Amino acid sequence: MLQKKNLRSRPIGIFDSGIGGLTVAKAVFNLLPNEDVIYLGDTARLPYGTKSKETVILYSIECMKFLLSKKVKMVVVACNTASSVAVNFLSKITKVPVIGVISPGSKTAVKSTNNKKVGVIGTYGTIKSKSYNKEIRKYSKDVIIFSQPCSLFVQLAEDGWTENRITYLTASEYLKELKKRKIDTLILGCTHYPILKKTISKVIGKNIKLIDSGEETAKEVKIILEERNLLSKRKKKGNHRFFVTDFPNNFKSISERFLGKKINNVKKAKLT
Amino acid sequence: MLQKKNLRSRPIGIFDSGIGGLTVAKAVFNLLPNEDVIYLGDTARLPYGTKSKETVILYSIECMKFLLSKKVKMVVVACNTASSVAVNFLSKITKVPVIGVISPGSKTAVKSTNNKKVGVIGTYGTIKSKSYNKEIRKYSKDVIIFSQPCSLFVQLAEDGWTENRITYLTASEYLKELKKRKIDTLILGCTHYPILKKTISKVIGKNIKLIDSGEETAKEVKIILEERNLLSKRKKKGNHRFFVTDFPNNFKSISERFLGKKINNVKKAKLT
Repeated sequence: MLQKKNLRSRPIGIFDSGIGGLTVAKAVFNLLPNEDVIYLGDTARLPYGTKSKETVILYSIECMKFLLSKKVKMVVVACNTASSVAVNFLSKITKVPVIGVISPGSKTAVKSTNNKKVGVIGTYGTIKSKSYNKEIRKYSKDVIIFSQPCSLFVQLAEDGWTENRITYLTASEYLKELKKRKIDTLILGCTHYPILKKTISKVIGKNIKLIDSGEETAKEVKIILEERNLLSKRKKKGNHRFFVTDFPNNFKSISERFLGKKINNVKKAKLT
Repeated sequence: MLQKKNLRSRPIGIFDSGIGGLTVAKAVFNLLPNEDVIYLGDTARLPYGTKSKETVILYSIECMKFLLSKKVKMVVVACNTASSVAVNFLSKITKVPVIGVISPGSKTAVKSTNNKKVGVIGTYGTIKSKSYNKEIRKYSKDVIIFSQPCSLFVQLAEDGWTENRITYLTASEYLKELKKRKIDTLILGCTHYPILKKTISKVIGKNIKLIDSGEETAKEVKIILEERNLLSKRKKKGNHRFFVTDFPNNFKSISERFLGKKINNVKKAKLT
């Protein structure tokens, strides 16, 4: 068996259906700057949000196998859709800890709400799966959950239309029901949505607490690695490597918007 | 060798990255009601618009091979992205005629324009490929082409937001440059866009001729089958079969909006 010392120096693996998960990677980089990280974006088959459960589980297994082949010490499922349907499944086929983005965001929302009214926004697939509802229910029996798919948000974020009038009107249309319900906490249940945070906050009200699932997931990664004595003891900055299954047309500009900095060291991955 | 009589009774094959190509299928059904048609939507890997040329060619070959295994007499590439990058390639690996949606739309636009100013709208991938520009250049040396990607239109069409204020404003933003250029003809260079025809026409001006690539492609299918004496002699209505590589969440409602009627007889296809 490998010694803890060797395990500790291994990278954290993160996968997503595409580029959105870079917002989760960014949160991990910020919180755990000394950790090595390998990011895989399944850009050849994105998005997962519109695909069936069976297909998403299959794709997720292939992504995880790729990360395991790179000897990661932990797998983070950065995609909300894959987190909704595949995390339990993935946990059963590896000894490495696997976490998704649904559970950390849900836990924090329950802690954050005072009036027990929580909103969840996400892709059609995430909302339909009711995965946030089920997860929140584990931590609280009396929180009332209101949810709303916001399908245009992904394209708006990718196009960089983050604060214009169209985005404001679209957000107003999507969020009007949640506003009526007087929620005090709103979960951004899609990796793309933090890019639109300012507009969402303006529309829903500055007093409403926005939960960024990516940031909460980074905190959870730290807790799990601490509990298992797997945090890197390294003093210098970690190494970040990026893999994609395809180089989309506008990969560079979108990825830089999501990561908040230039992206180097990107290679093409072949999943089998 | 097969006799013409047997060939004539074979189905027409149509493939697309997903559901958008149903607007092309609908045009074929309307123009050639007695033909059998097999439609394949590669919903497990949609969209093609954001993927690399290499990946789109590979996926297109797999789609065509599936249709050929069903003994089609002709292959229609309903996807603009696949038409842009893969039609020439596909034509070289089969004896069956293969046509895409770029050429018919381009030809009609050149015939239609009086002031020699043509606009093209499409996904980021289609516009970046300049495939409409290259095709139009084959038929005219002096037509000036202005193009504009309209990436939000796909999601707007899928969500059924076809005529609301947000769609109107989005169209106004995208089309403002084309309006300034005083085009008299506009090619709808994406299978999703005919769903938004009313709003697009309202924004760009009712006097601007809109070219629906799907309708023009259906006319071209008829011409090619006539030329090769491959039109079905059958008197009764043709049989329509649909295959998808995945059943997306909202498949039924979207497909019905695109096809304009209930969709029956849908099976899952496994591409190899």
